[in-house]
Amino acid sequence: MTAIDTYFATRATVRAYTDKEIDRNLLINLIELASHAPTTGNMQLYSVIVSSTRQEREAISPAHFNQPQVTSGAGVVLTFCVDINRFCKWCSINDAEAGFDNMQALMYGVLDCSMFAQQFNTLAEMHGLGCCYLGTTLFNAPLISEVLCLPDRVIPLITLTVGYPAASTVISDRLPVKGIIHDGLYHDYSGDDIRELYAEKEALPENIGFVRENGKNTLAQVYAEVRYPRGMNEEFSAVLNNYLDKVLFKADPIKRDE
Amino acid sequence: MTAIDTYFATRATVRAYTDKEIDRNLLINLIELASHAPTTGNMQLYSVIVSSTRQEREAISPAHFNQPQVTSGAGVVLTFCVDINRFCKWCSINDAEAGFDNMQALMYGVLDCSMFAQQFNTLAEMHGLGCCYLGTTLFNAPLISEVLCLPDRVIPLITLTVGYPAASTVISDRLPVKGIIHDGLYHDYSGDDIRELYAEKEALPENIGFVRENGKNTLAQVYAEVRYPRGMNEEFSAVLNNYLDKVLFKADPIKRDE
Repeated sequence: MTAIDTYFATRATVRAYTDKEIDRNLLINLIELASHAPTTGNMQLYSVIVSSTRQEREAISPAHFNQPQVTSGAGVVLTFCVDINRFCKWCSINDAEAGFDNMQALMYGVLDCSMFAQQFNTLAEMHGLGCCYLGTTLFNAPLISEVLCLPDRVIPLITLTVGYPAASTVISDRLPVKGIIHDGLYHDYSGDDIRELYAEKEALPENIGFVRENGKNTLAQVYAEVRYPRGMNEEFSAVLNNYLDKVLFKADPIKRDE
Repeated sequence: MTAIDTYFATRATVRAYTDKEIDRNLLINLIELASHAPTTGNMQLYSVIVSSTRQEREAISPAHFNQPQVTSGAGVVLTFCVDINRFCKWCSINDAEAGFDNMQALMYGVLDCSMFAQQFNTLAEMHGLGCCYLGTTLFNAPLISEVLCLPDRVIPLITLTVGYPAASTVISDRLPVKGIIHDGLYHDYSGDDIRELYAEKEALPENIGFVRENGKNTLAQVYAEVRYPRGMNEEFSAVLNNYLDKVLFKADPIKRDE
């Protein structure tokens, strides 16, 4: 295994940061390098909002349920957004009308933005920084949009907190690789397949602890009933769908004279 | 700039492959390493279908409008899918009911899957392989699903062709990094901002050529009227939305006895 492979095999989320500030030039360089990630038709349908001051991080914190990594140490918060606005404005001043108020355009942007964010994450980690993805971004898109002054056609997708690691990290378990690969065709899982694939995860002491602490019988119940319950998924889906209607699918057209 | 940074700055899409086969163990190792990419709540809501034989690649080729990279040389085709099926089956056999038939669950899977695919892309390129993302995957999800025998709750998201490069590559241009970064708040673009940001792109000889060949006046018109026209975006959005209704949002529940 090469040194590079070792990095990939041992990388882990970092949620607490020291007071060492990230050099501004380093941050810009990493973002620039990340922008060489693949992008749909070279449209780069994304922007990144950098919240670096304490005030800026505190302003965005409630939108992430005040998770401590947002304001930890001298970290910065990067909000990676699908940006269809810039592209549409470019079209508008060039006598072209972009038909991008639909699901396919959203997905061009979602893939562009997530590949860009992941490329940044890899680069930052390879440069000794630690990162944490916040799964809350799509729950609170309207609030994030308000705090960051996002115009129509700009959709917050991924938030990454970044800083110098304040503590050693723990590598997360993953399913055996045979459980995620299918040769030629999708081979659906039998109950026995599933039991075998998830056995190691279910046997981890921390997962046995989660089940007990939550008063459940199985780890799957912790996921389906405590961490990602139907009610929460449905509530935030409604918020997201309304938001997408408002800012993209049914938004007012770009003004030609802008 | 380190050797690693140079890789990120100079990586490029590779569309033609030699007849040198990818070692099976290497491929599996790269997929395994990629699976250490961040994932929502460690749910790993993805699967990858490997089409490696000529017959398998020819079977999937029409779904990608017979783009030549699908059957080029000894390449393989990887179809990265959002996989909510495996998670739901795990819940089902563990007395838990996953409420994952909604937009938020889809987005957990889309982000998981795209970060996994991008991590694989980076690893493969660092190991001397060349890759090409096919933007056609979400256009033809129903056909891909049929060819690859995808069950409900498995959605093809990203297709990557992979092989040893048959020719030297050309680095794609990108917007100036200041055009994608916003400090603190989103600073909307004026017409002059847009003209400045896109000037270099519009002046590239190949882009001037595209405008001329397509009988258009501006590069934006090539994008909005030829490459990604409204009619195409809307047609494939309807296909995708119907498909998502069928296989996820309105799919039959997982059978408890499976």
